[in-house]
Amino acid sequence: MLSQELRAASQIVALVGLVFAILMLIPWLASIFTGWAGGEPFLWSGLTTGLGCALVMVAGWGDTPRVTPRFGILVVNMLWWVLPLICAIPLINSGVNFTFADALFEATSGLTTTGSTILTDLVEQSRPVLLWRAIMQWVGGLGILSLGLILLPFLRVGGMQLFRMESSDRSEKPLPRLIEISKSIIIIYLILSVLCSISYLSAGMAPFDALTHAMTTVSTGGFSTHDESLGFYDNWKILWVSIFFMIAGALPFSFFIAIFFARNLPRYDPQMVVFFALIFMASTLVLLVDGWDNAVGFEGFSQYVFNVVAILTTTGYASGNFMEYGGVGPVLFFFLIFIGGCAGSTSGGIKIYRFIVLGQLIRTSLQELIYSRGVFLMRYGKQVVDKDIFRSSMVVLSCFFAFLIIFTIILGSLGLDFITALSGAATALANVGPGIGDIIGPTGSFSTLGNAEKYVLVFAMIIGRLELLVALALFIPMFWRD
Amino acid sequence: MLSQELRAASQIVALVGLVFAILMLIPWLASIFTGWAGGEPFLWSGLTTGLGCALVMVAGWGDTPRVTPRFGILVVNMLWWVLPLICAIPLINSGVNFTFADALFEATSGLTTTGSTILTDLVEQSRPVLLWRAIMQWVGGLGILSLGLILLPFLRVGGMQLFRMESSDRSEKPLPRLIEISKSIIIIYLILSVLCSISYLSAGMAPFDALTHAMTTVSTGGFSTHDESLGFYDNWKILWVSIFFMIAGALPFSFFIAIFFARNLPRYDPQMVVFFALIFMASTLVLLVDGWDNAVGFEGFSQYVFNVVAILTTTGYASGNFMEYGGVGPVLFFFLIFIGGCAGSTSGGIKIYRFIVLGQLIRTSLQELIYSRGVFLMRYGKQVVDKDIFRSSMVVLSCFFAFLIIFTIILGSLGLDFITALSGAATALANVGPGIGDIIGPTGSFSTLGNAEKYVLVFAMIIGRLELLVALALFIPMFWRD
Repeated sequence: MLSQELRAASQIVALVGLVFAILMLIPWLASIFTGWAGGEPFLWSGLTTGLGCALVMVAGWGDTPRVTPRFGILVVNMLWWVLPLICAIPLINSGVNFTFADALFEATSGLTTTGSTILTDLVEQSRPVLLWRAIMQWVGGLGILSLGLILLPFLRVGGMQLFRMESSDRSEKPLPRLIEISKSIIIIYLILSVLCSISYLSAGMAPFDALTHAMTTVSTGGFSTHDESLGFYDNWKILWVSIFFMIAGALPFSFFIAIFFARNLPRYDPQMVVFFALIFMASTLVLLVDGWDNAVGFEGFSQYVFNVVAILTTTGYASGNFMEYGGVGPVLFFFLIFIGGCAGSTSGGIKIYRFIVLGQLIRTSLQELIYSRGVFLMRYGKQVVDKDIFRSSMVVLSCFFAFLIIFTIILGSLGLDFITALSGAATALANVGPGIGDIIGPTGSFSTLGNAEKYVLVFAMIIGRLELLVALALFIPMFWRD
Repeated sequence: MLSQELRAASQIVALVGLVFAILMLIPWLASIFTGWAGGEPFLWSGLTTGLGCALVMVAGWGDTPRVTPRFGILVVNMLWWVLPLICAIPLINSGVNFTFADALFEATSGLTTTGSTILTDLVEQSRPVLLWRAIMQWVGGLGILSLGLILLPFLRVGGMQLFRMESSDRSEKPLPRLIEISKSIIIIYLILSVLCSISYLSAGMAPFDALTHAMTTVSTGGFSTHDESLGFYDNWKILWVSIFFMIAGALPFSFFIAIFFARNLPRYDPQMVVFFALIFMASTLVLLVDGWDNAVGFEGFSQYVFNVVAILTTTGYASGNFMEYGGVGPVLFFFLIFIGGCAGSTSGGIKIYRFIVLGQLIRTSLQELIYSRGVFLMRYGKQVVDKDIFRSSMVVLSCFFAFLIIFTIILGSLGLDFITALSGAATALANVGPGIGDIIGPTGSFSTLGNAEKYVLVFAMIIGRLELLVALALFIPMFWRD
């Protein structure tokens, strides 16, 4: 029954909202213990949000419906469309000069781990606000992990069934294994975050910066506490710490689970090989084209690798300005925006395995072109994969470009120039962070955009995070029939 | 046998080269009858080319091999890679200040009906050269028609088997039907060209301009005899003549064949509906965003429609500067570059039916996402189409973007800015003509590019014209095995 499912979904959203209400108390508590200014709005926001969510929960009490694909799609959609509104509440109350559009943009960019910001003069901002931004990204990263490792494989969306673990199989009783998997994800995520904080600290970051940057690094989020992002520190050790943990955040977490919990060797996964190959090739290309003339030393090389990894993992930190990498910078980084990291990680973008699938599709098609009677198998690594998986990967890829066209034309019609409209739509859909060009590039800021543009980008960020198809499902009439 | 096939393919290329040698005599003959200067180089080019081709034919005399897919792929590749070189010969000899790269670029742009030109001060150029440019595009258009209506359906490339007429079926004896189809194509093409010339003439064009523009209109080529392209005439009647015949050139010729030769009602073809819908929507969008502020009259409206049709049909004429269509111009026309006209026409680009296929793929995938046990059919119009056709359409689409990325990064590395590199690669691959931005946009010229960039674009134009897969087939080792 649709009405029952809607009610139950609202309850789940209210429950998660309650968790966020509790999270809002963290910046307030921190301000009490440290004497930071600006903590009080978080107390009031947390209390009112908590009260509202509790009311919804009481009002909607009832039976739990059977778990169907539709119910899953409904819950995920409601979560990602409603939570940014909840997360914006403390930002509106925070006393920062925020319009509603600004707060919603910042909250959406946080939760979806995009990392585009409209805040400038970050060092002037109150620490509770900066902490809240980091918390949103850290929790957002966790949400993406459960989406990618548990829910999408269960829904068989966009070829993610390739990465099904036993837990997400429909036929078995999934609950105990599911809780076990969730626990391992949280433990690994916590360990990575702690290790990252300590590494930043020992590389020379201040404690507050080390904590907040660790939270936005392992979540491949990209919010920083400085306008110059990680370029502020001018310290290659910090860059390499960041490179290491951005890569960790963009690797499939099933890999870590296999190593630490299942204690067996992880399966050979082609997406990881291609991921590292891409980092190597892109860095080499920049080094050849830009480094050739400028005789950069090791620090320059570190910056190249850092910026490539920051965009490829969809983190979106910056160090220096990749727009100035002689000729190749803008075009290379534009395409890097689309690619994204590995499936089952915190990263966004189209994701590497879909490009591997694409390559296989092209290879077998060429072979069949010549030998029309031959049957050629498509593989992902050593697995022979059925055509439906390949097809649904292609569908996500196509939807990505369809939405890119729609959002670019809307942004262009609103008056943005070509580069800003195109790369703005791309960076929002792929949840990366910076775009290309002077306005929203690595040295620009989204604060100069108008409210209409910000709302468009909010839509794009959420649709991108929902792997497009989960959001699109709402738009076919069949979905709403009982 | 590979060696036998290579020899026979060279013979076919030499035979077609001989035809082009004869065509070179046309500008010379015209110069004799009209007293134009600059005809003589065409006589010498024709004679030497003809002699060379005749020698190749005599040297390679032998048995004709069995017609296999590989032989077809080999012939088509050799034709499109060698003929631009042959067509460049009279341009090099013509006395125009041409480097070899310039001549090759102009010849390739002509034969592939791209229409990007590096010639400036066109009215100063000798008439035989201008006539030769028009001849290349007219004959190129004919080549594309036979590729799209006969060869690609036979090779089952990129979903073109959707448009198979009985003639291109492998099982029957195809030769008599094939000759019949070829004859009807030529007759329709001739009739359209003559009608177009007369219409241009009566709309106020000078006779020479009417002839050359007719040749580059029905072939959706886009070479003009004026730097301002059709904007030169400042005459809305000429614009509407051009709109009408560009659309005719971008419609499937099987539609005309059905009407004029088979004398039955043509089958309902969704690509035509979408084609007209796109023209309507894009023109309306420009009218709303740009015309709103500027209160354009009917002439302004004509320009909007003209520019939309010029890019969508991949002709590439210009009238005024669509870069100045407030905000929406650059982004809209950038995406229009990719789309292209109908399959089985003279137009380039990805082609509309592949986007229809994509839409069907997305629709059925969404339905299966919700009802995982349902089986949903993909349709093209009223036909239910098998998954292989859908798959091969997707492959062409994907290859298009893969090549776009490669060529853009190469052009960027050579030093072109973002917009020029990206839209230059796109406009060459889609065989459109102008790009976006100041350098190669509707008011710019390709003459300012360096030689390396020109060679890259030559590659892109030919690969795009070969529907990508036909060119890619050469790169898999299996192709060369006996």
